[in-house]
Amino acid sequence: MRRVCETMNVLITAGGTSEAIDSVRSITNYSTGRLGSIIADRFACENVSITYVCSTNAVLPSSSNVEIVRISDVQGLLQSIDGLLAKHKFDCVIHTMAVSDFTPKAVLTLDDIVANIALAVSGHNNLDAAQDLEPGEHRLAEKIHAAVLASAKPVSENKISSKESGLMIMLKQTPKIISRIKAAQPETILVGFKLLSGTTEDALLQAASNLLKQNSCDFVLANDLQNIKGDSHKAILINKNGSQKRANTKQEIAELIYQAITPRG
Amino acid sequence: MRRVCETMNVLITAGGTSEAIDSVRSITNYSTGRLGSIIADRFACENVSITYVCSTNAVLPSSSNVEIVRISDVQGLLQSIDGLLAKHKFDCVIHTMAVSDFTPKAVLTLDDIVANIALAVSGHNNLDAAQDLEPGEHRLAEKIHAAVLASAKPVSENKISSKESGLMIMLKQTPKIISRIKAAQPETILVGFKLLSGTTEDALLQAASNLLKQNSCDFVLANDLQNIKGDSHKAILINKNGSQKRANTKQEIAELIYQAITPRG
Repeated sequence: MRRVCETMNVLITAGGTSEAIDSVRSITNYSTGRLGSIIADRFACENVSITYVCSTNAVLPSSSNVEIVRISDVQGLLQSIDGLLAKHKFDCVIHTMAVSDFTPKAVLTLDDIVANIALAVSGHNNLDAAQDLEPGEHRLAEKIHAAVLASAKPVSENKISSKESGLMIMLKQTPKIISRIKAAQPETILVGFKLLSGTTEDALLQAASNLLKQNSCDFVLANDLQNIKGDSHKAILINKNGSQKRANTKQEIAELIYQAITPRG
Repeated sequence: MRRVCETMNVLITAGGTSEAIDSVRSITNYSTGRLGSIIADRFACENVSITYVCSTNAVLPSSSNVEIVRISDVQGLLQSIDGLLAKHKFDCVIHTMAVSDFTPKAVLTLDDIVANIALAVSGHNNLDAAQDLEPGEHRLAEKIHAAVLASAKPVSENKISSKESGLMIMLKQTPKIISRIKAAQPETILVGFKLLSGTTEDALLQAASNLLKQNSCDFVLANDLQNIKGDSHKAILINKNGSQKRANTKQEIAELIYQAITPRG
C-alpha cells in the first residue's frame, strides 16, 4: 500500500450546487456531501494529497490534511475545477457532487406571456394566416416563441416580491463540468456518479454507461435515490470494460472506489 | 427578572424552507438560522421553555433545554405551527424563519407552450378574430392562458431529465404562515421579520409596517440583505405604536427583542 500512498493526488467533489433565482432564493440540488466525505476519509493517508471541492453546507471529511475549496454554484465550480486542473496533476478525480443541470435564466409572469402573445398573434392574423397556411403556421410558432422570450426579465439580484402571482422561472442548461476533466487531464482516473430516481436497474445501468462513454470515465457509480435511506446506500460501480461491483452502504462504496483505483499489485 | 422567567413559553422559528421541484432539486430560501439561534440563546434561562422550529440545516441554539422541531417545506411548517399552537399557549412567537413565498406548481417546456398556443390560436383565427375584435381579443387571451396551463405537467417525485431544454417552472404562492399565529393565539406577543434587498430605509419601514398591520404583529424587525455582512447586521425593530429601535449585530437584535418582550417592571 505504501507504494500507492507515496505520490497520490486526489480530487474529490462533494455536496450539491445552488443556482440563484434572486438575492434570497436559489434552486438547490439536494446532497449532504456525506458520501464524498466518507470517500475522502477512505483515501486519506500520510502521503495522499486530497483536494475536496464542496458546496457551502457540505459535510467535511474528518481527516485533517485535506484541502477544502468551497463553491456555491456551477460557475464557481467550473472556475475552481479549471483552475485546479491547470495547476495540479491529479492521479484521480472522484466527482460525487450533485451539479445543477439547470440554472435560472429569466423570470416571467403568466399575465405578461398571455398579453405579449395576444399582441403578437393579433398582428399575425391580419398578415399571414389566411394566405398560406404552412409557412404561416411556421411563422406563427416563431412569433409565439419570440413573444414568450420577450416576456422574460433577466434574473436579478433583487428580491422578487412575494406578491407576484403567476410567476414562472425559465431555466437554461449549465455547462457539463464532468466533460472538462479528461479533456484537461486524459491520464487521470475519472470516477463519475449517476443518480436517478425510481427507475429500473437496466435503465440505471444504461444511463451510467452513457455517462461513462460520453465523458471518458474509467468508472461510474450508479445509484437510485429510492435505494438510499439512512446508512443503507445501494450502488453499482461499473467500469469501462462493463464489469460491475455492488455496495450496500456508503462505507462499502468508498471501499469499492478505493480498491478500484488502488489495486493491490 | 425571575418574575419573567418563571412561566415563559417561547416559540422561535429559524432557518429557511425548501420547496421540492422533483426528487433531487428544490427552491430554497437562503437562511442559516443563526439569528434565530442567537435569539433562542438570549431567551434561554432555567424557567423559559423554548420550542425551536427550524429547517433541516439550520444552526441550533447552544443552550440545552430547547425543544427542536425540524421541518423542510411550508406544508411541514404549517402543520407544525398549527399543531404547536393548538397544544401549547405561547407567551411570545418570534418568527425569524425565511418562509418560501412560492412553491413549484408545474413544469413546462417552451416547445410545448409554443405548440399548444399555436394550435389554440389557429382555431381562434377562423372562428373569432375577424368578426368582433374586442370580445375576440378577450377570448384570444383566454385561449392563450388555457393553452399555457395545458402545457403544464404537475411537479412529480421523479427526477427531471438533465436533457430537457427550454424548461420552465410555474410557481404558486404558499399560505402565509405568520397570519395563523395571532388568529390562533390573539394574546401572544408576535415578532415578525421583514427582509428586503437593496431598498431604501423608507420603503423597508413601510413594508415592515404593512407586515405588522396585516398580521397583527406587536413588533417587526426590518432588515435589508445589503446590510447583513458577517457579524454586522443592521436592523430596526418597530413596534405597533410606531417606535423604532436600532441594532447593528445579531447579538444586539437578540437583546432588543428580549428587552421589548420582557420589559423590566
